[in-house]
Amino acid sequence: MAGESARNGGAAGQQTVRRHNLALVLGEIAGGEPVSRAGVAARTGLTRGTVSSLVEELLAAGLVTELAAARGTPGRPASPLQLNRSGPAGLGIEIGVDHVSACVVDLSGAVRARRTVASDHRDDVPSAGLATATALAGEVTAEAGLPVAGATVALPGVVGADGVLERAPNLPRWVDVAVGDELGVRLDGLPVRAGNEADLAALAELRTGGPADAVYVSGGIGVGAGILLGGALFRGAGGRAGEIGHVVVEPDGPACSCGGRGCLETAAGLEALLRAAGTPDVDALLAARPGPPLARAGRALGVALAGAVNLLDVPSVVLGGIYPRCGEPLIDAVRTELAARVVSRPAVDVRFSALGPDAALLGAATAVVHDLLARP
Amino acid sequence: MAGESARNGGAAGQQTVRRHNLALVLGEIAGGEPVSRAGVAARTGLTRGTVSSLVEELLAAGLVTELAAARGTPGRPASPLQLNRSGPAGLGIEIGVDHVSACVVDLSGAVRARRTVASDHRDDVPSAGLATATALAGEVTAEAGLPVAGATVALPGVVGADGVLERAPNLPRWVDVAVGDELGVRLDGLPVRAGNEADLAALAELRTGGPADAVYVSGGIGVGAGILLGGALFRGAGGRAGEIGHVVVEPDGPACSCGGRGCLETAAGLEALLRAAGTPDVDALLAARPGPPLARAGRALGVALAGAVNLLDVPSVVLGGIYPRCGEPLIDAVRTELAARVVSRPAVDVRFSALGPDAALLGAATAVVHDLLARP
Repeated sequence: MAGESARNGGAAGQQTVRRHNLALVLGEIAGGEPVSRAGVAARTGLTRGTVSSLVEELLAAGLVTELAAARGTPGRPASPLQLNRSGPAGLGIEIGVDHVSACVVDLSGAVRARRTVASDHRDDVPSAGLATATALAGEVTAEAGLPVAGATVALPGVVGADGVLERAPNLPRWVDVAVGDELGVRLDGLPVRAGNEADLAALAELRTGGPADAVYVSGGIGVGAGILLGGALFRGAGGRAGEIGHVVVEPDGPACSCGGRGCLETAAGLEALLRAAGTPDVDALLAARPGPPLARAGRALGVALAGAVNLLDVPSVVLGGIYPRCGEPLIDAVRTELAARVVSRPAVDVRFSALGPDAALLGAATAVVHDLLARP
Repeated sequence: MAGESARNGGAAGQQTVRRHNLALVLGEIAGGEPVSRAGVAARTGLTRGTVSSLVEELLAAGLVTELAAARGTPGRPASPLQLNRSGPAGLGIEIGVDHVSACVVDLSGAVRARRTVASDHRDDVPSAGLATATALAGEVTAEAGLPVAGATVALPGVVGADGVLERAPNLPRWVDVAVGDELGVRLDGLPVRAGNEADLAALAELRTGGPADAVYVSGGIGVGAGILLGGALFRGAGGRAGEIGHVVVEPDGPACSCGGRGCLETAAGLEALLRAAGTPDVDALLAARPGPPLARAGRALGVALAGAVNLLDVPSVVLGGIYPRCGEPLIDAVRTELAARVVSRPAVDVRFSALGPDAALLGAATAVVHDLLARP
């Protein structure tokens, strides 16, 4: 019996090594495509035979595809390999406070279909938003024409480790909603995970070359943050870290949707910006970029971020969501506050996200692809 | 050549295993003393022969000692083992804003000598405080009569990963001072590390059974925090995390020693408390415990801590330094603010530290012993 169990252990060990090598080979293809089998062998240190056998497995799984062989190659042609743009794809869904978006990205991360609709959920029960999200997911999946392997849904609130939306201050009727499970059922059993929108946007930022240690702030009707430490998302003891929108910037300030007072969101959320600018029109606000209200919002943002940097000692701040469209008046005020208030380090790099308002949606879709590539 | 290098690798591997097992055996003795060799073997899974050989090494190094054998034991007596109270000891030094303390703890963590002197460093150059600390360290070392293996010095400011005190807002003339190196030279080459006082106090809290995920706040002339995540101190990208004293609680509030305005320290530091209570006498303040000023300080503390909990998602807050002596008016206000303002989790446990004002000093001294036990 002991011998048998040892033999099983050995087989399991070989399986683990093979799976590890499979991910290694796929990673090399993803990072250097197009690349030959010989190139993969050289970079991984695996034998050509091992690489060929693993590549066969990846071809069979539809994760990798062969390009036409280079002309004039003597002997067996060395067809270059690349990720299969027709292979398993990732579906991203974003249920925002006032919109729903969905997109499909292929294995290379390229967006193959994307739609967004205005859909205000502030007074709605979850079923209305879930129905809109389901319909939109079906539309982008049909349009992309790719086999969708899974989905991630980005949500504007506190998402527990089990994927339940526990609380979204701007969606008062969405309390303890298992959004991932609900959408999975509506999408014919597709595996659907749920995550906080700022967390997913921060991961998108990281995966497109952003800083490894940073506070990423997503500005919208709600204000949230994704905290990146050492190249990974910091989730906190309960998976709910990063609620910067409810860091207090004025203890006796305006009432906030969370029940508190003077939260950052009441000073630098979209509704505060519109109120300060005296317009109900977001596009008009962001086209005019009135200095004083944007500087006031930037000052509040800087006060909250100075606290976060003093606590976390991170070197970078990335401003996303609507903030990049607010321009200099906002970012200058943020920089001024940080320069005056941060004691934990001499300088903090503050930049706008280059990913645009779709960062969370892209982060959600690429999270699926990222998992496929990490665990083929 | 390949064979030789493999043999060297094997020898190095055996060394690593032996060192690991040495720490394992010492850990079992520390955690279960007094304990027999047979008991250690049973708990570690090592053979009795291996345990006996490792114990010989620990006895020779003076880390462990044998108690008298139990009477009436047949055959070779099984002398129980325990940590050597006369063995290598840890020296802790605290240079505070207005005092210097030093203590020696033995391998079991028991305090064997302790002294403190009033010594105000706010207008001083570092050499005066360093001289006081050196003298006090000599006194407690002589009093304890133990071989001191190393020291840690607790400092009220931003300490970089290299042990340099970069900035202490309340000690304006202590800028970029290599306090550990300086004290090491004065203490005849003793290895001296430096750490932030709140970080060391948080570690002391953790090692005496405190929560594994918590923000520990140390209140004094300065206000600092040690952040505990998953049972370890979170240091941040540059080793300078936890500067909660400079989290803003009132953007246009009083000027702070850091150059900012309305920092937590200006509302909940000792000088703010004395000013609010209209007395210059700390003992008088803490004896009278006037409700309104302490509640105001507690409210500011709660506002800053709500921000920290919303960002970090930790379940516990521990209040140390002078705060335990402030009693109910302070802690009730902290709890009220957290209940109203934390969105990331339903409840936060708020407690006073039971370690008293020496937490940082104890954390500094036990850090030395902890290292000795972890890497014998």
